[in-house]
Amino acid sequence: MAEPAAAVVVVGGGVIGLSVAWAVADAGYRVRLVDPTPVRGASWLAGGMLAPVTESWPGEEHVLELGSASLASWPDFAARLTVAGGDPGLRPDGTLAVALDAADAATLEVLAEFLRGLGRSAVRCSARELRALEPGLGPGVRSGLHVPGDLAVDNRALLTALHTACRRSGVEFITTAARRVHPNAVTLVDESTVECAAVVLAAGAWSGQLHPALAPLVRPVKGEILRLRARPGALPVPTRTIRAHVESRPVYLVPRHDGELVLGATQLDVGFDEAVTAGGVRDLLRDAERVLPGIAEYELTEIAAGLRAGSPDNLPLIGTLEPGLLVATGHHRNGLLLAPVTATAVVSLLRGTAVPECVRAADPARFTERNT
Amino acid sequence: MAEPAAAVVVVGGGVIGLSVAWAVADAGYRVRLVDPTPVRGASWLAGGMLAPVTESWPGEEHVLELGSASLASWPDFAARLTVAGGDPGLRPDGTLAVALDAADAATLEVLAEFLRGLGRSAVRCSARELRALEPGLGPGVRSGLHVPGDLAVDNRALLTALHTACRRSGVEFITTAARRVHPNAVTLVDESTVECAAVVLAAGAWSGQLHPALAPLVRPVKGEILRLRARPGALPVPTRTIRAHVESRPVYLVPRHDGELVLGATQLDVGFDEAVTAGGVRDLLRDAERVLPGIAEYELTEIAAGLRAGSPDNLPLIGTLEPGLLVATGHHRNGLLLAPVTATAVVSLLRGTAVPECVRAADPARFTERNT
Repeated sequence: MAEPAAAVVVVGGGVIGLSVAWAVADAGYRVRLVDPTPVRGASWLAGGMLAPVTESWPGEEHVLELGSASLASWPDFAARLTVAGGDPGLRPDGTLAVALDAADAATLEVLAEFLRGLGRSAVRCSARELRALEPGLGPGVRSGLHVPGDLAVDNRALLTALHTACRRSGVEFITTAARRVHPNAVTLVDESTVECAAVVLAAGAWSGQLHPALAPLVRPVKGEILRLRARPGALPVPTRTIRAHVESRPVYLVPRHDGELVLGATQLDVGFDEAVTAGGVRDLLRDAERVLPGIAEYELTEIAAGLRAGSPDNLPLIGTLEPGLLVATGHHRNGLLLAPVTATAVVSLLRGTAVPECVRAADPARFTERNT
Repeated sequence: MAEPAAAVVVVGGGVIGLSVAWAVADAGYRVRLVDPTPVRGASWLAGGMLAPVTESWPGEEHVLELGSASLASWPDFAARLTVAGGDPGLRPDGTLAVALDAADAATLEVLAEFLRGLGRSAVRCSARELRALEPGLGPGVRSGLHVPGDLAVDNRALLTALHTACRRSGVEFITTAARRVHPNAVTLVDESTVECAAVVLAAGAWSGQLHPALAPLVRPVKGEILRLRARPGALPVPTRTIRAHVESRPVYLVPRHDGELVLGATQLDVGFDEAVTAGGVRDLLRDAERVLPGIAEYELTEIAAGLRAGSPDNLPLIGTLEPGLLVATGHHRNGLLLAPVTATAVVSLLRGTAVPECVRAADPARFTERNT
C-alpha cells in the first residue's frame, strides 16, 4: 500500500499511536506523529493489565483471540522496547479475580468454564487458597479465579519508553492537533495540511471526530482511576493484579514494583467528559477497600479520568478505511494489551502483506461495508 | 519595642504572616517577609470559615472571645483589603450546624445553651426548617443550629489579595527558608542572617522548629481537604456553610460563589505528614454525602492535606517571646478568622501600646513563664 521510505503520518500519541509509529519507522518508513500532547491520553491513565483472559466473556471470542495473540508477543515486545527505549516494567505475576458474594462466585464459575473449554489456564481457588497467595485480601472475599498467565505493565514507563524508541527511530513529532484525516493527508487545526503516502488514524476516543465514517463507531467511555502508594507501616501492595465486582461495579487493583497501586475503573458512557466525580472516587475507594482493606492507610496520590475508545462490539478497528487511510482505534479497555499486535498489523497493511485471522476480524469493513 | 521605620522581619507567608506584614508595613515599618513559598501552606488549603461561634465549646471561652473580636473586625478588614489588594470574597451567609443522630442533636443543644448564656445568636431548627434554608440536605439530617452571624471567606482570594497588598505596601519577600529565629535576626537555610529591630515568627506548624521555646508548644495537626465543583445538572452548592459530625468525625462544607464547595477536614496528630490517605478521602466523601447527597455528582477537583499549627489549649500564641522577637502562631483551625486581630495586635506590640484583654490571654508567657 505504501512503499518503504514513503511518508506515513500517525495521528495520535497514545500507546497505539506510539507503538505503530515505532514499528512503522523501524520498517523503513518516514514517520511523523501528530498529537498536541503525546504520551498522555487514556493510555497515561491506564491500569496496565495485560489480561485477555480475565477480560474475556462468552460471545467475545474474537476479543479473546486477538488479546491472546498480542499477549503472546508482549514478552518479545517488551524486551525489544527495553533496548530501544527503556524498560516498560512488565510483570508476570498473573491475575486474581475474586468474588465477594454468591453472584460473583457464579460469574467466575461461568468464566472458568468458558476458559477451560478453550483450553486456557484458570484455577478456581477457595478463600483460604486466595489468602495464601495475597494475605491482604479482605474478610468478604469468598472465592476466586487465579489466572497465572496474565501480565501487567507500568503504563507510564511503557509510554515513556515508546516515546524514546520513536525518537531514536527517527519519528518526527508534530505537536499540533489534527482537525480531519483524509487519504494521504491530515489537516491540522491551524488549517495546514501534512501530505503523505498513508495516514494511520490512532486517535482513540477522538478518532470519530476526525473522520465521518468513524463517528458512529467510536465513542468515548469514561474511566475514573486512582493512584495510591503504600506508606511505611502499611500493608505492602499485592503481588498480583486483583479484580473483583462489588455490587456489580468492576474494580481492579494493579500493583507496581515501586509500591504504587493503581485502582480502576469506572465505565461510563457520558460523552467527552473527563471530570472526576465525587461519587466515582467514593465508589472506587469503597469497592477497593472491600477487596484489600489495608489500602485505607495508603497515600492517595492522584485522581483522574480518561476516555477509552469504545467500539460497538468491543473489538478494535484495525484495517484500511480507504486507500491511503488506515485506522487503529477502538481498543476500549485493551489498548496496552493490543499495542504489539496492532503495530505489527499496521506494518503488514502498509506493506500489503497478510494479517492474521484474529486481526482480520477487527477490520472496520465489518461495519462500513454493511453501511454502503 | 521597635521605632517606626525600623526593620521588621516576618517569618511565614501564610495568612497570619501576610496579614501581619501588611499591617506592620502600613504602620510605617520596613518589612521583609521570609518564606520559600509564600501564599501557600495551611492557609491555602483552608475551608474559609470565619466561625468562632460554631467552633466554640464550653471551657474555651478565651478562644470564643478572641474569635468574636476578630470576626467583628473582619468586614472592615475585608473592605480595606479589597481596596489595597483585591476582594477576598467575604460571604455573610452564616453557618448551619446539623445533627444526624440523637447524640449529635444533644451536642448541638449543649452548644446552643452555652451560646445563649453568652448572649450569642444561635437558633435551633427542625429538619423542616433546615430544608427550607438548604433544600439539598440529606434525609438523615434531623435537626440543627443556625448561626446567622458566622462569615466565610475565599481563602485563596484572600491570600492572593494579601500578597498584592503586601507588595503595594512595600513588603520585600525573601523566598528562602528560615533555619532559626533569634531576637533581632533570622538565620536562613543558606546560613546568611537577616538583621532587624524585631522578628515576628508566624511560621504556623513549623514555628516550633525555628525556636526552642516553641518546640513543646506548637505541633502540626494534619487536615485533609477536598475541593469539589457543582456540575451542570447537579444540585447547586448550598448558600451557607454546613457543619456536621458524622460518627464523631467533624465535616464541614463551605460554598464559594463560583460553584466550588470545599470539604474538610480531618484532624490528625501525625507529625509532619502531608500525605492524603485513601481512608481520609473515603471518610470525607462519605460523611459529606450523608449531609448533602447531591455532591456525588460534583467534580472532585482537588485533594490535599495541610498542617495546622496546634497549641496546647487551642488558643494561639500572640505576644513577645523575648525582646526583639514576637510570635504569632498556633492558630490551629482559626488562622483565617484570627488574622485581623493578630495583625492589629502585632502592630500594638511593636509600638509598645496595649493589646485587648482577649489578646493578652494568648500571650505565650502563659506557658513559658511557668517553665522558668
